[in-house]
Amino acid sequence: MNIAIAQSGGPTCAINASLVGVFRQGLLTEKIDAIFGSVNGIEGMIGDELINLKSILRTNEDLELLRQTPSTMLGSCRYKLPDAETDPTVYEKILHTLQTHRIDIMIYIGGNDSMDTVVKLSSYLKKNGSDIRVIGVPKTIDNDLPITDHTPGFGSAAKYVAVTVQEIIRDSSVYSIPSVTIIEIMGRHSGWLTASSCLLRVNDEEAPHLIYLPEADFSAERFIEDVRREMAKHKAVVVAVSEGVSVDAEGLEAFQSGATDVFGHKYLSGIGKYLERLVVDKIGCKVRSVELNVMQRCSTHICSKTDLDEAEEIGQAGLRAALDGHTGMMMYFRRVSNAPYAVTIEMTDAGNVANMEKKFPSEWITPDGNQVTDAAIPYFIPLIQGEVDICMKNGLPVHFQRPLQMH
Amino acid sequence: MNIAIAQSGGPTCAINASLVGVFRQGLLTEKIDAIFGSVNGIEGMIGDELINLKSILRTNEDLELLRQTPSTMLGSCRYKLPDAETDPTVYEKILHTLQTHRIDIMIYIGGNDSMDTVVKLSSYLKKNGSDIRVIGVPKTIDNDLPITDHTPGFGSAAKYVAVTVQEIIRDSSVYSIPSVTIIEIMGRHSGWLTASSCLLRVNDEEAPHLIYLPEADFSAERFIEDVRREMAKHKAVVVAVSEGVSVDAEGLEAFQSGATDVFGHKYLSGIGKYLERLVVDKIGCKVRSVELNVMQRCSTHICSKTDLDEAEEIGQAGLRAALDGHTGMMMYFRRVSNAPYAVTIEMTDAGNVANMEKKFPSEWITPDGNQVTDAAIPYFIPLIQGEVDICMKNGLPVHFQRPLQMH
Repeated sequence: MNIAIAQSGGPTCAINASLVGVFRQGLLTEKIDAIFGSVNGIEGMIGDELINLKSILRTNEDLELLRQTPSTMLGSCRYKLPDAETDPTVYEKILHTLQTHRIDIMIYIGGNDSMDTVVKLSSYLKKNGSDIRVIGVPKTIDNDLPITDHTPGFGSAAKYVAVTVQEIIRDSSVYSIPSVTIIEIMGRHSGWLTASSCLLRVNDEEAPHLIYLPEADFSAERFIEDVRREMAKHKAVVVAVSEGVSVDAEGLEAFQSGATDVFGHKYLSGIGKYLERLVVDKIGCKVRSVELNVMQRCSTHICSKTDLDEAEEIGQAGLRAALDGHTGMMMYFRRVSNAPYAVTIEMTDAGNVANMEKKFPSEWITPDGNQVTDAAIPYFIPLIQGEVDICMKNGLPVHFQRPLQMH
Repeated sequence: MNIAIAQSGGPTCAINASLVGVFRQGLLTEKIDAIFGSVNGIEGMIGDELINLKSILRTNEDLELLRQTPSTMLGSCRYKLPDAETDPTVYEKILHTLQTHRIDIMIYIGGNDSMDTVVKLSSYLKKNGSDIRVIGVPKTIDNDLPITDHTPGFGSAAKYVAVTVQEIIRDSSVYSIPSVTIIEIMGRHSGWLTASSCLLRVNDEEAPHLIYLPEADFSAERFIEDVRREMAKHKAVVVAVSEGVSVDAEGLEAFQSGATDVFGHKYLSGIGKYLERLVVDKIGCKVRSVELNVMQRCSTHICSKTDLDEAEEIGQAGLRAALDGHTGMMMYFRRVSNAPYAVTIEMTDAGNVANMEKKFPSEWITPDGNQVTDAAIPYFIPLIQGEVDICMKNGLPVHFQRPLQMH
């Protein structure tokens, strides 16, 4: 029996840990022979671009290094499968690849778009009488998948955000003149990652003084009022804002690239610079915007050990579910308790997750829509716990380097 | 005998370590009684805003936490002392503060602008028959001070840059389509910090494929040619560019705030976004710009142990020099050897450093002006070595919190 693993969507710190989980479970399972990696997600299955993972991941040291290497070792894609009824060609190509290499199980590690692939491909295979199984393993720093308590990758991103915002708070408060620092945080149309900056309260930080999420209405006028009010109380005001906050303003577009990916998602960054200009124009004080940018999803040097451990476990569980005969399912975390923290790994129909977004709960947003309530803190705390003992060489983390044929 | 310490200029990861060095040396020196901290650099001396550091830094744990807290605990300033001949009022105020608190020694931790303060104040005091001594302790992430081999704060910034650029390299290379990632790095008009990204070669990274420094001529046309050439060789091209690279283009100003500080330094950021637009317009491929922003100077969670240790030692040495009767001097590092790494701490007239910039050596820039030569690597390597065992609580670094009266 052979298996294939693919990684898809935006990179995270934990997506390679899930790959390691599937791989290790594969090694432990006697009836599994070859373990293939599909290059660039589903594109590798369509184009028959597979690599023999056992020839690349030779030692336990390789696996440990890969676990602590950010991004997707196998490459990624943003390819959206067409409808199988109207355009079966792509599916026939995938089936051909699967059959050529006698693959019985495919594990797809990805976000909500990737679960769309799991749904479509598993249903095509079933309809065509194949018993090849497809199982989805979640990942995304956005934490916006329904059903699951949280997504692998989110804990590390939240830890990066909290650690970095705390350092920016120190940096922002040195001068005697009043200032505003605006920190733009990822998360697409959900506010989970930005909201996680409320974690700093457990270390007695007052900032961020204002937190704006896509789930609350935003008005430029109220923003300026909020900032003025906070400036009366604090010399250095720190604002956390989600990239996905929608401002009804032409001005914003000047700060955005306007580009979209194949799923039609617009690249969202730009609101930090927009609000910076707004503060300059309306208040005229010292202001700086900081975009945490891709560092939020690739700073494995400060990743959450809980996140990496869970990412590996949910990968293992995905392969076990497929071995048990399941297909078209996505693995997920169910939280049993906050303190002591405990989760179980379950599975759900990938159709319950595909193309959907889980919003940050409105009951955890203050009525003014400019802060997160303390009630959210116990949710976030366990996800950022623990540090990974990163392997260093020459003062730098050592990454697992992709084999040359993949460059 | 009483002493005062002040911190000035832009924050770094190591400026509090130098404060700890002076403080610890003060504790060790029997004849020293009170150790004052001046709030917001020289401003605190002018306005008689001093705090008794012994009442704030009570335990060794306080000192260890402060050592690993970024930014300047005492606050900072960008205040430029006027000429003492034409405007003696400010000097009289400082002298009054010094005399009121019977301060015999003042240690000023700062960059090239701060050394201007050391020169002016020490010469005013000498001229007026005072034997109060003023000693400068260097700091800046820009590494642009003459005389000294390197500046405290630079090693940690260089380590942050190298670690982060390596992670961005992983992040940037996941998709199958060609892409360009432009990383904008601080350093003002010198290229030291951007150049330090060449360190990744010791870990077998090929990227950054192009490195642009202020010390080399820059042309938008040649930049596009360079990018095209690298794109023919690499799927994911990574470019490191100094904020201070001067482009002769009106377009850049749209991406800059245009603001200046009191020393007349223009805020430089914006070239990353400018080059991003240029690549979109001229090449039309996927492109992203990433500004490392203030994280370069405050990410103590990944600081260089060598840097923090040296910052503390040079602070100690500064106080010892003052106790020996020196004034108007700046402490500096002289490198004895690269491997094994060894430096000595010396002193020089602060006038040799004030208001001057040390450029990145032209012999370490390739003739095309778009890369750093391997000859630079042995200079950088020792500066980023070692990790500090950061004190963590609730999954987050613990910072030394400034006393409430300073907020």
